[in-house]
Amino acid sequence: MNAPFRPPTPSSAFLQSAKDLLGPKGWSEAPDALDEHATAWRGAIKGETPFAAYPSATEEAAALLKLCNDHGVAVTPQGGNTSLVDGGTPHGEIVVGMKRMNAIRAVDPLNNSLVAEAGCVLAAVQEAAEGAGRFFPLSLGSEGTAMIGGLISTNAGGVAVLRYGMMRDLLLGLEVVLPDGRVWDGLNLLRKNNTGYDLKHLFAGAEGTLGLITAASLKLFPQTAKATAWVCTPTAQAAIELLALVRDHAGDTVTSFELVPANAVAMVMEDAPKVRDPLPHEADWRVLMELSMADAAHANETLENALGEALERGLAVDAAVAASVAQAKDFWRIRETIPLSKRAYGTSVNHDVSVPISAIPAFLEAAGAAVRGIAPRAEIVAFGHIGDGNIHYSACEPADADEPVLRGVSAEIMAAVHQTATAHGGSISAEHGVGLLKRDEIAELKAGPEIDMMRAVKAALDPKGIMNPGRVVET
Amino acid sequence: MNAPFRPPTPSSAFLQSAKDLLGPKGWSEAPDALDEHATAWRGAIKGETPFAAYPSATEEAAALLKLCNDHGVAVTPQGGNTSLVDGGTPHGEIVVGMKRMNAIRAVDPLNNSLVAEAGCVLAAVQEAAEGAGRFFPLSLGSEGTAMIGGLISTNAGGVAVLRYGMMRDLLLGLEVVLPDGRVWDGLNLLRKNNTGYDLKHLFAGAEGTLGLITAASLKLFPQTAKATAWVCTPTAQAAIELLALVRDHAGDTVTSFELVPANAVAMVMEDAPKVRDPLPHEADWRVLMELSMADAAHANETLENALGEALERGLAVDAAVAASVAQAKDFWRIRETIPLSKRAYGTSVNHDVSVPISAIPAFLEAAGAAVRGIAPRAEIVAFGHIGDGNIHYSACEPADADEPVLRGVSAEIMAAVHQTATAHGGSISAEHGVGLLKRDEIAELKAGPEIDMMRAVKAALDPKGIMNPGRVVET
Repeated sequence: MNAPFRPPTPSSAFLQSAKDLLGPKGWSEAPDALDEHATAWRGAIKGETPFAAYPSATEEAAALLKLCNDHGVAVTPQGGNTSLVDGGTPHGEIVVGMKRMNAIRAVDPLNNSLVAEAGCVLAAVQEAAEGAGRFFPLSLGSEGTAMIGGLISTNAGGVAVLRYGMMRDLLLGLEVVLPDGRVWDGLNLLRKNNTGYDLKHLFAGAEGTLGLITAASLKLFPQTAKATAWVCTPTAQAAIELLALVRDHAGDTVTSFELVPANAVAMVMEDAPKVRDPLPHEADWRVLMELSMADAAHANETLENALGEALERGLAVDAAVAASVAQAKDFWRIRETIPLSKRAYGTSVNHDVSVPISAIPAFLEAAGAAVRGIAPRAEIVAFGHIGDGNIHYSACEPADADEPVLRGVSAEIMAAVHQTATAHGGSISAEHGVGLLKRDEIAELKAGPEIDMMRAVKAALDPKGIMNPGRVVET
Repeated sequence: MNAPFRPPTPSSAFLQSAKDLLGPKGWSEAPDALDEHATAWRGAIKGETPFAAYPSATEEAAALLKLCNDHGVAVTPQGGNTSLVDGGTPHGEIVVGMKRMNAIRAVDPLNNSLVAEAGCVLAAVQEAAEGAGRFFPLSLGSEGTAMIGGLISTNAGGVAVLRYGMMRDLLLGLEVVLPDGRVWDGLNLLRKNNTGYDLKHLFAGAEGTLGLITAASLKLFPQTAKATAWVCTPTAQAAIELLALVRDHAGDTVTSFELVPANAVAMVMEDAPKVRDPLPHEADWRVLMELSMADAAHANETLENALGEALERGLAVDAAVAASVAQAKDFWRIRETIPLSKRAYGTSVNHDVSVPISAIPAFLEAAGAAVRGIAPRAEIVAFGHIGDGNIHYSACEPADADEPVLRGVSAEIMAAVHQTATAHGGSISAEHGVGLLKRDEIAELKAGPEIDMMRAVKAALDPKGIMNPGRVVET
């Protein structure tokens, strides 16, 4: 892991001014609270912080950042604290927690838009959209915890990117407190607005290093009916050809296309005995696919026609179409339980890579060879959102292994998998971001014009370097 | 119009070096050629240039920009030269024309991606996609002329934004020559890649002010069948409720939703006698709508069901579904002929505004009152892509008007329409961009943090200010 930047401890004068402006409910120095802010989701990342601020409104957040800027106090913005890459964990910075700014400011069904404050959890936004007869498509495992501000700052992905894009693609506008405490009101509700550099795309994915997102205007979509299938397929090559076949039948109404290996299904069955394998089969791979159409009958008919052709052509060897919403949820439960069951299975070295979809089979073969060259008995679990090229690639070892080796070679495995992804035109961080964890590796990969531009942008927008310093790019 | 920046004339030493590196086919000083580069599409914008460069490859473009940077020579990149806002017209700069870099470098149907050089015209990209059994959705009037580099630099819009987004939304990656001559190879083919600031979104829409785009990787989509209807609707409010109704039936397979006023249809009939009005009716408005689905029967069934309900509810008063591709083309011809027929009709003051869709009726009423307060007899033609809130709003006057007044009050009308759009949460440049034409007006609207950030970004990425100086933002 990269060495964190250690900012100076804030002065007591700063702390008193911050408390005064935030009011009694607006801050904490309680050790328990600070410890929670300093511990990332899975407990694997541990930092420290002297002070947590909870602004209740944009103006308060603005006054706070102005104070920080004046005193040279560094800030780590925090949403639901679900980062996996040490992006939102303070290492001496004060935390700005957004939980009190959780209003849905507006919903406009005719314009298909919604304005939410940064502290709204994703599930609340999904519900507000549904209440207006609309749909907000971002969907991921931590949707009950992850907040809109963090989801934008990390450009979150999830299970519907194939159809709806990443978080940045769902943005209409942003309200951001700049590092100097000024407020940029970029909360427009427009789908077309060519009036200069598109700054919202700089803040999206910047992981809090350029400013503090306080609210966002978001795109809503029509509600749809879903048709869901669980499909056994013989090879990874067959899986990507199956994707092309299904899209030939269904166009871009294919919303999700998740790859699940047979050994991951076995891990889930072992760990969660109530979960049933819907289609026991000796094939190596499963695909969980979902179509979304306005008309349920059209969706089911299209899915069944596509699967019929897939079975004929040998791209599928068995398939089950969900007969009910409950059965579709059962399929999804298997997919969503994989990360936990993998942890129950034992040690694992995890990666969040992406490659062009056409390169997935070659990547899997090359990465497997590389990993087995380092740890010959490693169990490889490669699952994820292959409809958009994103593979969560893990090398695993049982908790009760006779001769455990994986921990000792984890850095070597990670380097090999990342190198293999890069060699296949891929990314070493598909959706989890950079944080502190991958910063130096990315600086090396992007050495030259790209990292220079990133540094120039950081210096231009946060000249004092108070916003989440050291994350994403070192200045 | 804003005063253009006048860069110093390039030295003869610079010109000789440029000619040497570009080779005999790589440049021109012929007055005719230079005049063509200096005259924008509709002839209304007239600039000047001493020299046109035509690099044939990225390395040549890079060497040229390095030379320009070393000599402090300003550059105006030029694609198809179809800008309407004085964005690509040189005013003393040398022109870098991209026509020789027109290769389709790669097409990958399994990954749904294509790599095109900046000088490819849009129609060539559409054809290459079709040849691979895929679809590239950007579509606009000038697609036989406009080039990919310019379309990205201006973040082009067009008639399918409702479903597929703007040009930036169709980008996977970019290759850019930076102002100092270094090449940023950001040509990735990935849909998920969270490895730092998303720089491609800075260059998209920057109108050549941050660097020279030389190639792009683009998203492809499944091919679909279309169902097209021409619908008479009584009011603008009914038109936007009709959009919501159709999306309830069809989800986001509604690809286009174009508003056409009855007086624009009359202008087309007058100007182009071979074009037939498919549905003569006294109603004030028409909507041209198109659904795109994998299955043609599904699309037609869905459209007919939606229109049935619309007629029942009074949101439509008459409707015709195209019985053939030829008939759909006839519908589109009316829509696409409006700009020319409007010019044949007489003088017009044109605007490219957008507002939230729900605000369209109120905007139209307020803008109409404002315009008639200035020019009581002005004929108002408001048409465009209302599915994404974009209205091409014109105040017109017949060429043979007894007492022509429009030219004398055009600045006043423009200010009033822009002010009305802004007051309704709208944009004064929905899809045409900023260029020189709207630069100062936008600087005023965005005064404060936003324009300051734009200036900081420009200074950070083009510190010598050689790239299309004075367009978009003054430094």
